[in-house]
Amino acid sequence: MYDYQVLFNFTQTVFEKMGLSVEEARQAANILMRAELRNISTHGLVRLPEYVRLWENKRITVTPKFTVVHETPSTALVDGGKGLGLVTAPKAMKLAIEKAKTAGTGWVAVRNSYHFGIAGYYAMKALENNMIGIAMTNANPLVAPTFSKNGMLGTNPIAVAVPAGEEPPFVADFATSPVSRGKVDVFEGEGKDAPDGLLQDAKGNPTTDSSILRNGGALRTLGGDVAHGGHKGFCLTAIVDIFSAVFSGANFGPTVVPTLGYVENKTGAEDRGIGHFFGAMRIDAFQTAEAFKAGMDGWIRTFRKAVPVAGQERIIIPGDPERVAEKVNLEKGISLGDKTLNGLKQLAEKFGIPF
Amino acid sequence: MYDYQVLFNFTQTVFEKMGLSVEEARQAANILMRAELRNISTHGLVRLPEYVRLWENKRITVTPKFTVVHETPSTALVDGGKGLGLVTAPKAMKLAIEKAKTAGTGWVAVRNSYHFGIAGYYAMKALENNMIGIAMTNANPLVAPTFSKNGMLGTNPIAVAVPAGEEPPFVADFATSPVSRGKVDVFEGEGKDAPDGLLQDAKGNPTTDSSILRNGGALRTLGGDVAHGGHKGFCLTAIVDIFSAVFSGANFGPTVVPTLGYVENKTGAEDRGIGHFFGAMRIDAFQTAEAFKAGMDGWIRTFRKAVPVAGQERIIIPGDPERVAEKVNLEKGISLGDKTLNGLKQLAEKFGIPF
Repeated sequence: MYDYQVLFNFTQTVFEKMGLSVEEARQAANILMRAELRNISTHGLVRLPEYVRLWENKRITVTPKFTVVHETPSTALVDGGKGLGLVTAPKAMKLAIEKAKTAGTGWVAVRNSYHFGIAGYYAMKALENNMIGIAMTNANPLVAPTFSKNGMLGTNPIAVAVPAGEEPPFVADFATSPVSRGKVDVFEGEGKDAPDGLLQDAKGNPTTDSSILRNGGALRTLGGDVAHGGHKGFCLTAIVDIFSAVFSGANFGPTVVPTLGYVENKTGAEDRGIGHFFGAMRIDAFQTAEAFKAGMDGWIRTFRKAVPVAGQERIIIPGDPERVAEKVNLEKGISLGDKTLNGLKQLAEKFGIPF
Repeated sequence: MYDYQVLFNFTQTVFEKMGLSVEEARQAANILMRAELRNISTHGLVRLPEYVRLWENKRITVTPKFTVVHETPSTALVDGGKGLGLVTAPKAMKLAIEKAKTAGTGWVAVRNSYHFGIAGYYAMKALENNMIGIAMTNANPLVAPTFSKNGMLGTNPIAVAVPAGEEPPFVADFATSPVSRGKVDVFEGEGKDAPDGLLQDAKGNPTTDSSILRNGGALRTLGGDVAHGGHKGFCLTAIVDIFSAVFSGANFGPTVVPTLGYVENKTGAEDRGIGHFFGAMRIDAFQTAEAFKAGMDGWIRTFRKAVPVAGQERIIIPGDPERVAEKVNLEKGISLGDKTLNGLKQLAEKFGIPF
C-alpha cells in the first residue's frame, strides 16, 4: 500500500519535470490521484507514462494557450492549444460554471486537447457550486459501431454529477462501451478470456480473446448485438463523439490520432487533438434550490431502499462505492498494480526522482 | 395499407371528440402519424386508445394550462397542467428553441404531463431552426435497476437530432432499455420467447418469457448483467429519469402512476404526471454555422462509408432508415397491426366516426 501524499507528490514532481507550472502540475496530479482514490485505477497513475510519451513525441505542449474561440451567453468553444486535458479541462469546466452563474446553464466544447483523466472529476466540480455537472470526451478509436468491421469510436465516457440535500450526490461516471479498454487489459494481463459478447476480431466476428485489441480487433457497443440493443449503445457513443469533437472541431471517431501504439492511424488527418464537452446547470435553474434538493434526496432514498435480488445486498446508487473508496484509500493507502509500479519506477529513473 | 391522410384525419377527429382544440388535435395527430411514417408504430396509433382511457379516467385534462413556473435566461420549468404530452411538449420544445435564440442554448423541464409520443419528433423540431435538439421523458416503471428485484424505471427514451450541411441530419431516438415494452408485446403477440438477457421474472431471475411484464417481471437495463455493462445502462436510464422528473418535480422512477393496467401502483404518491426534458443548442453556439455543418457532413460521410462485417450492407447512420420509411409510407400507405386496427375500430364506434 502506498501513501496518498507520497504518490501525489511524486506525480506532481513528474509533471513539473515535464515543464508544467507548479500550480498546473498540482492540479494534474490531483486529478490522477482522485482516480486512484475512487478505485478507477485505469485512469490513474498507470496513465502517467503515456503522458510523458505524448510529451516526448511532441504531441502535446506543456504550456498550452487556452483560447476562447467563440461564445454565446451560455456556451463557449475553447481551443486547448495542444495541451493535456489535465491542464485544459479544469479551466474549461470552470468556464462552464461561470456561464451557468448568469445564464442558468453553461456548455463548453474543447478541441486540441488530450487525455483528461476521469470524466467524473469535472462533473463533480459543479457540485461545489450547487450545480449539476456533465463531462464527456472522445478517445482512441477502439469501439466498432453496429455492423462495422473496425473500431471507429472511442470508449467515450460520460459523467453526470447531481447534488442532493442531505444525501451525498449522485455521480455516474462510465465509459459508454460495455467495458473500458483498461478492463480488457486486465483480462489479458491475467491470461483470461473476456466474457462473451464484448469483443470482435479483425473480421468483425465475436471473440473472447482478450488480446484481440492488439491484433486488429475491437470492442463492441453497450448492449452487444442488435437483438440486445447494441445499436442503442452505438447511438450513445456516437452522441458523445459528436458533442465532444464535432461541436468543437477536434478529431472525431476514426480520425482521432491514436495515443496507443497498437491502434492503426487510419486517416492521416491533421491532429486537432481529441474533444471534450462540459456542462453545468444551476440547481435553481428549474425549481428553487430547496425543492431540487428535496427531490433529489427523495430519488436517492427511494432507490437506496429498493428490494435487491437474492444474493445481492442492495441497489447501488451511482457514486456510492467511489465515495466509500476515497475515504478508505486516503486512510489505508493505495495499492498499485505491477504495470503501474513499473511505469512509475521507470519515470523515477528517467527524471532522477526518488520513488 | 391505409392512406396517410385518411388516418391523420381520423386521428385528429378522435382528439377533437375528446375536446382538444382543432389546432391541438391536428398537432397531436401529426405527432402520432409521424411515428407511423417513421415505422415506430409502437408510439403511433396503437396508443390512441390509451389516451382516450386516460381522458375517461380523468387522469388528463384536454384543455390544460401551460405555466412557466420558474426560469433563467437559458432554462425554464413548465407545469403541463395535467395535459397530454402531445399537447404540452410541442410548446415546451418551442420555448427551449426561443431561449436558445438569445442564450445560445435552451433547456426546459416539464412536469404534470403525460405520454408525448416519439421523443424524436421534438428533437427534430430544433433542426428547422438550425439547432441541435434533445428530448427525453420518463415513463411507467418497467425496468429493473442493476440488482433490483422490481421494475423501478421507465424505458426512458432519449432523442438527439443534429443538423448537417449537405447530408440529412443525424437523428438518434431510442428507449434506453435494450428493447421497448412494445417490442416485448410483439414477441408475446406472436407467441415467441424474447431473446436471452432482456427480461427478469418477479424474483429477479433471468427469463425469456415474453408475457412476464404482465406477471410481475421487469425489463433489464441496456447491457444486461454487470459483466456486460448493465450498470451503465442503469446509469443512463437513471439520468433520463432525474433530468425529466427530478429537475421538474414530476413523479420519478417507481412513483410514476402507471398508465398500464398490469403495472402495480406501488407508492400511492400524488400524481404530478411524468416529466420531460428538452434541449436546443444553436449550431453556431460553438463554431460558425458553416464550420459546424461541414464537420457534421464529414462525420456522417465517414461512418456511412465504413467497412461492414460480412453479411451486412452498411453501417446505419441514426435517422437514415426512418427518413427512408417516411417517404415510402407517405407514398404507399401505412400498414397497421391487428391490435392497432381493433383499437381504432372501437374508437370509431365510441365516437361515431366512420373508419
